[in-house]
Amino acid sequence: MSLNSVPLANRIHIGLFGRRNAGKSSIMNAITGQNLSIVSEIKGTTTDPVIKAMELLPLGPVAIIDTPGIDDEGELGELRVKRSYQMLNKSDVAVLIIDANIGMSKEDEKLLKKIKEKAIPYLIVMNKADIKEIEKKEADTIWVSAKTGKNIFELKEKLAKLALQEETEKTIVADLLEPSDLVLLVVPIDKAAPKGRLILPQQQTIRDILDADCVSIVVKENQIAETLENLKQKPKLVITDSQVFDVADSYTPKDIWLTSFSILFARYKGNLKQAIEGARAIETIRDSDKILISEGCTHHRQCEDIGTVKLPSWIRNYTNKNIEFEFTSGTEFPEELEQYKMIIHCGGCMLNDREMTYRYRCASDQDTPITNYGILIAHLKGILERSIEPFSL
Amino acid sequence: MSLNSVPLANRIHIGLFGRRNAGKSSIMNAITGQNLSIVSEIKGTTTDPVIKAMELLPLGPVAIIDTPGIDDEGELGELRVKRSYQMLNKSDVAVLIIDANIGMSKEDEKLLKKIKEKAIPYLIVMNKADIKEIEKKEADTIWVSAKTGKNIFELKEKLAKLALQEETEKTIVADLLEPSDLVLLVVPIDKAAPKGRLILPQQQTIRDILDADCVSIVVKENQIAETLENLKQKPKLVITDSQVFDVADSYTPKDIWLTSFSILFARYKGNLKQAIEGARAIETIRDSDKILISEGCTHHRQCEDIGTVKLPSWIRNYTNKNIEFEFTSGTEFPEELEQYKMIIHCGGCMLNDREMTYRYRCASDQDTPITNYGILIAHLKGILERSIEPFSL
Repeated sequence: MSLNSVPLANRIHIGLFGRRNAGKSSIMNAITGQNLSIVSEIKGTTTDPVIKAMELLPLGPVAIIDTPGIDDEGELGELRVKRSYQMLNKSDVAVLIIDANIGMSKEDEKLLKKIKEKAIPYLIVMNKADIKEIEKKEADTIWVSAKTGKNIFELKEKLAKLALQEETEKTIVADLLEPSDLVLLVVPIDKAAPKGRLILPQQQTIRDILDADCVSIVVKENQIAETLENLKQKPKLVITDSQVFDVADSYTPKDIWLTSFSILFARYKGNLKQAIEGARAIETIRDSDKILISEGCTHHRQCEDIGTVKLPSWIRNYTNKNIEFEFTSGTEFPEELEQYKMIIHCGGCMLNDREMTYRYRCASDQDTPITNYGILIAHLKGILERSIEPFSL
Repeated sequence: MSLNSVPLANRIHIGLFGRRNAGKSSIMNAITGQNLSIVSEIKGTTTDPVIKAMELLPLGPVAIIDTPGIDDEGELGELRVKRSYQMLNKSDVAVLIIDANIGMSKEDEKLLKKIKEKAIPYLIVMNKADIKEIEKKEADTIWVSAKTGKNIFELKEKLAKLALQEETEKTIVADLLEPSDLVLLVVPIDKAAPKGRLILPQQQTIRDILDADCVSIVVKENQIAETLENLKQKPKLVITDSQVFDVADSYTPKDIWLTSFSILFARYKGNLKQAIEGARAIETIRDSDKILISEGCTHHRQCEDIGTVKLPSWIRNYTNKNIEFEFTSGTEFPEELEQYKMIIHCGGCMLNDREMTYRYRCASDQDTPITNYGILIAHLKGILERSIEPFSL
């Protein structure tokens, strides 16, 4: 089937949640018209979360996350419940399925609260509505019967609408600019820069500036001073690669905003506040604390060098503490984060937004501070406060 | 085998040429250690050119083009010879295999002349040197025996050396610049531009300018005038997207160089002279002439719009002739080009250099003028002469 050609990561992820026997698997089969999950009346059939690529009309190819019951019991059961909660962090849309004959339980209420906290678009499905017909009109609730097919069509339409909710038009930097503003971009070129190209965040920033009817001026760090002198109109903003943050800071007059690509992209991905708080956690580090340094891809020599060599040494110098560092890269990301005093993540330019959101949400669930390379560098160099001035946080 | 994971297009293409029975297939087997091609003493076994992915040590994964004998006879035979000659256009390295017992024939000499004309790195292999042992030391010739394996190791070393010949360091625009020069890039953003990105040639140009210690100023066409006024130092060069060539021309003072991304990339790929001559062929177009408009990919809405809609209409207006247009896209490119009065190709940003070179070489073989979209647009708008001023052609 051609729909298999859409990679899982590019599909909208719909998480199905609910108590055991609420009918998660029957709903999945009813909406996709496929009989893939084992539907049974025995409680707890679905144990581990399974992500399945499916066609959900009228939406198209989606990924459906089938999760364990949120009322599971016993030691293993509690672990399963934990996994279900974790799957919220991967869900673009959450569907809470409730047995209409029982109504909303305390487990459902707890999950719903979490969904709302995480601001995940959601829908409550009152299933088995063939047995007890109470039709209520609530915007976030639909009454269906997986068994008879009642309202399944309407459920699919509602899901499609939720999933396709126009993303609020996000900009990288355009909201800080007026037409005709100049923006100076500082792009160092070292051996580790990719040959003959610009990295994605630089490209995206230049494009965003063009879209705002503004002008990008792209220089290496050794031309900041000369270029500033050459302009009759002051740039509104200087955006620098974090590697040369201190150089950019010293050459940029105090009346010109200065920030970094890392900060702009943390903001773009919705993680800036968390990442700034995360960076400040470095102040509380003590001897023998563990820090996780995590990289989203395995092939950026530049990030690797910063992550495994420069950051540990800067941090040791700054804190003067005996710190234990752990490193992960690529899709590798630990489940248990509480063991770390803080997490320092790369900018994640090669991870999709869902995965970055997942990692930030998991850290937040486990009260573990998380930040990114550039924001920590700014903090270590004492430039962070200046660099976040342009933003209202 | 992991070596299969290198796509054919990324492998160095080694073309094996020679008369029937000179031992092309035996040489191929001897150097790759595989027995893939039918080796036989019957003349003309290899009829159609076959491109095979192979491991050639010490070089690594290569593509070997096994071609029909260049002395084939009869109607079908002549067609095969023509196909062999065409395969020169796909070869990064050409190997001319000669039966040492016979020596160089007039067919070999003719092919060698063509190889030299096209400036393809080549090696002459005197095969069957076990029969008649004449060792000569010539830089471009090696004496081997596929049968006994004599000098096969040396042949492989020579091939690797030829194939790895350091490409002369090519720059897009850096050779026109002095450190600290300013370059103004005009990048229009219309509906057809890719969302949130810059197209590859724009990225590559900005990077090349950074590498030259110069400054890129990136603007939309509506900010050229204002930006020029804002600079104390004049830009050395304005580089524009061809779509807004006339706007850029009118706003750029005559003492500042003006050129386009199309022109820079034709130069970068070594096709500029041919493409300029190609554009001038529009002056000789007559009623009912056929023009081929060819696109390298199938997914750039921007190019499609220019190729299938705008160009035909501009050309009809300019020539006032009744022209027949044909269109191809993607890997599709006709074998017979003589039927066209001229070929107008896209910039080929998604085609690899070998494929673009192949198309330009084929057009040249068939005396068919070939140009690209941007260079033709410049000619039609009367800006071509100005736009090639920066280059010594």
